Amino acid sequence: MANFEIPSEQWAQVVEKPGGPVVYKKIPVQKPGPDEVLINVKYSGVCHTDLHAMMGDWPLPPKLPLVGGHEGAGVVVAKGELVQDLELGDHAGIKWLNGSCLACSFCMQADEPLCPRALLSGYTVDGSFQQYAIAKAAHVARIPKECDLEAVAPVLCAGITVYKGLKESGARPGQTVAIVGAGGGLGSMAIQYARAMGLRVIAIDGGREKGESCRQLGAAAYVDFTSSSDLVQEVKQATPEGLGPHAVLLLAVAEKPFHQATEYVRSRGTVVCIGLPAGAYLRAPVFDTVIRMINIKGSYVGNRQDTQEALDFFQRGLIKVPYKTVGLSELQNVYQLMKEGKVIGRYVVDTSR
Amino acid sequence: MANFEIPSEQWAQVVEKPGGPVVYKKIPVQKPGPDEVLINVKYSGVCHTDLHAMMGDWPLPPKLPLVGGHEGAGVVVAKGELVQDLELGDHAGIKWLNGSCLACSFCMQADEPLCPRALLSGYTVDGSFQQYAIAKAAHVARIPKECDLEAVAPVLCAGITVYKGLKESGARPGQTVAIVGAGGGLGSMAIQYARAMGLRVIAIDGGREKGESCRQLGAAAYVDFTSSSDLVQEVKQATPEGLGPHAVLLLAVAEKPFHQATEYVRSRGTVVCIGLPAGAYLRAPVFDTVIRMINIKGSYVGNRQDTQEALDFFQRGLIKVPYKTVGLSELQNVYQLMKEGKVIGRYVVDTSR
Amino acid sequence: MANFEIPSEQWAQVVEKPGGPVVYKKIPVQKPGPDEVLINVKYSGVCHTDLHAMMGDWPLPPKLPLVGGHEGAGVVVAKGELVQDLELGDHAGIKWLNGSCLACSFCMQADEPLCPRALLSGYTVDGSFQQYAIAKAAHVARIPKECDLEAVAPVLCAGITVYKGLKESGARPGQTVAIVGAGGGLGSMAIQYARAMGLRVIAIDGGREKGESCRQLGAAAYVDFTSSSDLVQEVKQATPEGLGPHAVLLLAVAEKPFHQATEYVRSRGTVVCIGLPAGAYLRAPVFDTVIRMINIKGSYVGNRQDTQEALDFFQRGLIKVPYKTVGLSELQNVYQLMKEGKVIGRYVVDTSR
Amino acid sequence: MANFEIPSEQWAQVVEKPGGPVVYKKIPVQKPGPDEVLINVKYSGVCHTDLHAMMGDWPLPPKLPLVGGHEGAGVVVAKGELVQDLELGDHAGIKWLNGSCLACSFCMQADEPLCPRALLSGYTVDGSFQQYAIAKAAHVARIPKECDLEAVAPVLCAGITVYKGLKESGARPGQTVAIVGAGGGLGSMAIQYARAMGLRVIAIDGGREKGESCRQLGAAAYVDFTSSSDLVQEVKQATPEGLGPHAVLLLAVAEKPFHQATEYVRSRGTVVCIGLPAGAYLRAPVFDTVIRMINIKGSYVGNRQDTQEALDFFQRGLIKVPYKTVGLSELQNVYQLMKEGKVIGRYVVDTSR
Repeated sequence: MANFEIPSEQWAQVVEKPGGPVVYKKIPVQKPGPDEVLINVKYSGVCHTDLHAMMGDWPLPPKLPLVGGHEGAGVVVAKGELVQDLELGDHAGIKWLNGSCLACSFCMQADEPLCPRALLSGYTVDGSFQQYAIAKAAHVARIPKECDLEAVAPVLCAGITVYKGLKESGARPGQTVAIVGAGGGLGSMAIQYARAMGLRVIAIDGGREKGESCRQLGAAAYVDFTSSSDLVQEVKQATPEGLGPHAVLLLAVAEKPFHQATEYVRSRGTVVCIGLPAGAYLRAPVFDTVIRMINIKGSYVGNRQDTQEALDFFQRGLIKVPYKTVGLSELQNVYQLMKEGKVIGRYVVDTSR
Repeated sequence: MANFEIPSEQWAQVVEKPGGPVVYKKIPVQKPGPDEVLINVKYSGVCHTDLHAMMGDWPLPPKLPLVGGHEGAGVVVAKGELVQDLELGDHAGIKWLNGSCLACSFCMQADEPLCPRALLSGYTVDGSFQQYAIAKAAHVARIPKECDLEAVAPVLCAGITVYKGLKESGARPGQTVAIVGAGGGLGSMAIQYARAMGLRVIAIDGGREKGESCRQLGAAAYVDFTSSSDLVQEVKQATPEGLGPHAVLLLAVAEKPFHQATEYVRSRGTVVCIGLPAGAYLRAPVFDTVIRMINIKGSYVGNRQDTQEALDFFQRGLIKVPYKTVGLSELQNVYQLMKEGKVIGRYVVDTSR
Repeated sequence: MANFEIPSEQWAQVVEKPGGPVVYKKIPVQKPGPDEVLINVKYSGVCHTDLHAMMGDWPLPPKLPLVGGHEGAGVVVAKGELVQDLELGDHAGIKWLNGSCLACSFCMQADEPLCPRALLSGYTVDGSFQQYAIAKAAHVARIPKECDLEAVAPVLCAGITVYKGLKESGARPGQTVAIVGAGGGLGSMAIQYARAMGLRVIAIDGGREKGESCRQLGAAAYVDFTSSSDLVQEVKQATPEGLGPHAVLLLAVAEKPFHQATEYVRSRGTVVCIGLPAGAYLRAPVFDTVIRMINIKGSYVGNRQDTQEALDFFQRGLIKVPYKTVGLSELQNVYQLMKEGKVIGRYVVDTSR
Repeated sequence: MANFEIPSEQWAQVVEKPGGPVVYKKIPVQKPGPDEVLINVKYSGVCHTDLHAMMGDWPLPPKLPLVGGHEGAGVVVAKGELVQDLELGDHAGIKWLNGSCLACSFCMQADEPLCPRALLSGYTVDGSFQQYAIAKAAHVARIPKECDLEAVAPVLCAGITVYKGLKESGARPGQTVAIVGAGGGLGSMAIQYARAMGLRVIAIDGGREKGESCRQLGAAAYVDFTSSSDLVQEVKQATPEGLGPHAVLLLAVAEKPFHQATEYVRSRGTVVCIGLPAGAYLRAPVFDTVIRMINIKGSYVGNRQDTQEALDFFQRGLIKVPYKTVGLSELQNVYQLMKEGKVIGRYVVDTSR
């Protein structure tokens, strides 16, 4: 077992008041409790949720002062007395679900994301935008040594989330799934996971450039909502017998696609909602939903098993995530680009600079 | 094998123009095709759908002239050359699904109610408001001889429909299901099926009288929407840990309960839509649906297997259906009462008078 | 929150050498670790497994010296710093699975009984045949205050085990399950759980007396292997259409019933093995298993969710367990009766005497 | 719709007495019944079952005289009055299941292979070793026009069977399946289907040559039973964490692999039996099966939905079947090679010569 020298102070990005900005400063390194580990975060992905946490514009108020971040990949450097299956030196990931009670009726059924006592990284507890972060040992992602810590970071939230959604869709190998928002960061991962799971993909997004990128990732068809004269018909016609896709994955951050999806999904098919457009509502005619036996469901983040499975697909080289790396010190710039809608793909921060 | 004398003419109630009324008259008796049977209908339940068929106020226009009815219980008196597993004299039931292609991708997966070539009794083909009705042999309900043909008639649509909805809910024995509209005709059957399936029932309806009836049928709790100050809270508090019911069965014919259901259903729970309020829409906040992983689904009528299972519960004495019998000749009066909202429970018509 | 005075010494039954006997003596009371609770055991059921643990005649050697017992019902009197959802004074149960890692690939999928680091009460760690026992907080059964601690004790192993087996069978409400060994201790609970889950029961055992008891508990049919001339045919004929039961629960401690079960189970049905006759082998013809698509599976103890569900059925008054209570000091006599095959039903020991 | 000239006589291979040989002769062409089609068979695969049918060495005696064959690919040239969804000129396949009642409790649940009235091509009814064969319209495989009729023939039995087995295994994309007999005809298709379904494959067979072929088809690991010193350990070590594969597909025609499979399968995993070694028995220790919650099940041929799905994978170019084509007139030679164990891969007969 390795032995690590742990400093008493470290660099972190701290939200000190609602609305930000983040302040790059030195703060103390914490000590893990009996069931916790201390992770030396090497890289962390940056997610829109992190921006929301800084702005404080979601219903649930985040802790303050706050260290954000929930896609942190690093090395276990200390652990509590109860931690058995992690060794110092192991690679591990901090994800949105930092911890949960492991004993409530949701945790007992492996639905720990629904635990009422869940701890959320970079929101209700400090996250991965620091060099040393604490997490519950039972919850940190076990990252195989073969995985590049920089490249794997975005899998820890975005990857897990789309993989979970595909599982929740109930689509079986050989069936067809439509992915709405297929050209974005989540979408490009969703196409790759879907392909690795043996699914046929209909990609839906706007613009020719996104279409090309979707097809390169393996989509069997691309429907461009900016140019389609009848999107519903076009999606259906891209499926065998014109019956529509068995499942729809909604990654979009607009309300309209939610309403269209129930029109083109196959009878007995499933519409999975993942994206969270602010204040949006699902809306579907009761008559059609009943007569066609349509299923509409929400999918949140994955549980620990989903996490390990999503990582396993990554490790086998089936998932390539486009990302751009900057120093942790530049985080505020990334937020600025996000606000301006200028971020395509994923940003990763390197905590060493 | 019995031998039956089949008349060339019979009494029937015929819709001759949209809006009705039904005309009680003599019409010819049909002959079954190779894969069909002729059933001497003894009793038939009367459903709201029959009224819609007469009025022609649904999007899909019914055939004209039309013999309505899709809860017909009777005796097989003739059969086509291909029919192997039914004998003359067997008891059989005509249900909403008169026939389907048995070969399309829905039929092949036992989802024959979704067959695009489905024949609908009393709507696209003549139904059970006549003394002799035709149906596809593979689709008629096999009614055990022990079942009273008068009492079993309403099971053939109402019973199957609520039983199917309970199966679709995914609720397991020991779990809790809320039934909205529990005091009505469908609701009273739903409570009994739910109890027979080992489920705990929270009945939701309006008025003290309905509450008493629900409790007598086995509901563990009753929530009265006419007097409740906070229906959502009251339903949740009637469940263990206050987490809400695992499933909700929506039999109501109003829109509001559809919106409330997603608020009180347990996280990871399922809201099953069955009732068809005219022009109603499902509506649910995307955020809550995703974060709580809620499932909303439509359930139409049962398939043939569901039919036999629903009948089996009836045969074992676990389902009592309140009904009132009148002569087939009085059908127009029943429609009149329906229009006036004066029908509680189920009407059954006796085709012999 | 209550406050409990905890003695430094207590009465316990201790196995000091393989083969026993148990020695009734005073031993120190342990202190719970950060994730553990200390339970003041009031009553504990006695199971055949406890006898095996004393005799040391199973492949896996038990700890020595050993305090046996894994059906302990009592009161939480102390807890570690990490324990959040249990309060002093809560009622809790010690079951076979005393603890597990909660982080391996089995635990992550709620299959904690398969955890390679599982701690087994009364086998690899001290169990419930003492007045104060330690258990992992996440694993102790949460016993509702309404449950009698004496009556509930046997549910903690026997009840959970048969309930789990019924879940694993995949049998749905309305379907038929055959229970082999229905007249014994496990069998009588299995009949009651099956009935509460909406299943039809065919009880199989030997002798008229057991038949009467099975029927009283709700079995629809009883097949007596001591008098049946063709058991396979008799079981099949007790099912609709003579197709055989959808599932078979094997609680017997002999090998022959394992071989018969695959003969009478319905095509596509499931044979669930629970009982552990020493050195027994499953055996079934490949041809028949394939052509009839039969499923044979083993079911071990329940997980934590199964535990709470099994307790919930008990709490609602649906499960009555026959038992006889003696003082903890008399445990060796109970083992003696077990060895002589004289135990019918369940023994419970009272730790206060 | 095309119009076809149908001769009154045709060439066929006829078994005239148990043990054969087949006689190549002219026989009359049959006319389809109301629910049947007449298929002009172009190519037919040859299966070991056909040899058994000729030899009459299985428990169920075949019809006599018999035209064998159940992997026939051809063109619909006539149809009965009830046939709606097939047109003359459509491509269709004759498979083992020639017809079933479509109304029994198995057919109603899409388990038509278990129908007690099932008609078996080339066994209880005449099959595809003739130029014009009859089949129930609802049962013939719908072959897309894009598929080569020669190449697709072996999919109609071998392909469907292994695909069904993989579905029955319950293995999810990303999980690991061991295929025993991976180097044979069925095995090579099984590897390809498994890969297309997102599964990791451990191939098990004998000899270096088979190993290379398995790896080329996409197996992640190959275990050679002829050279392995500890097959059970070797299979387990080829899986993540050494826990063993989630599922095992038994295509072997020997008994020993049936016994080994339960030793190396992962706890909670599934062993699927498909191959039918004459007189073989499953055998597994009860203790291990229970404690590790192992599932052993038989998988027979696919249903109609499985058929269409298996064909869809083929159509998308994911399944390559090695075969060798000879004239129908040479069928007896093929049987001779089979008897001598000299057939590797699949033989296809061309009915035009």
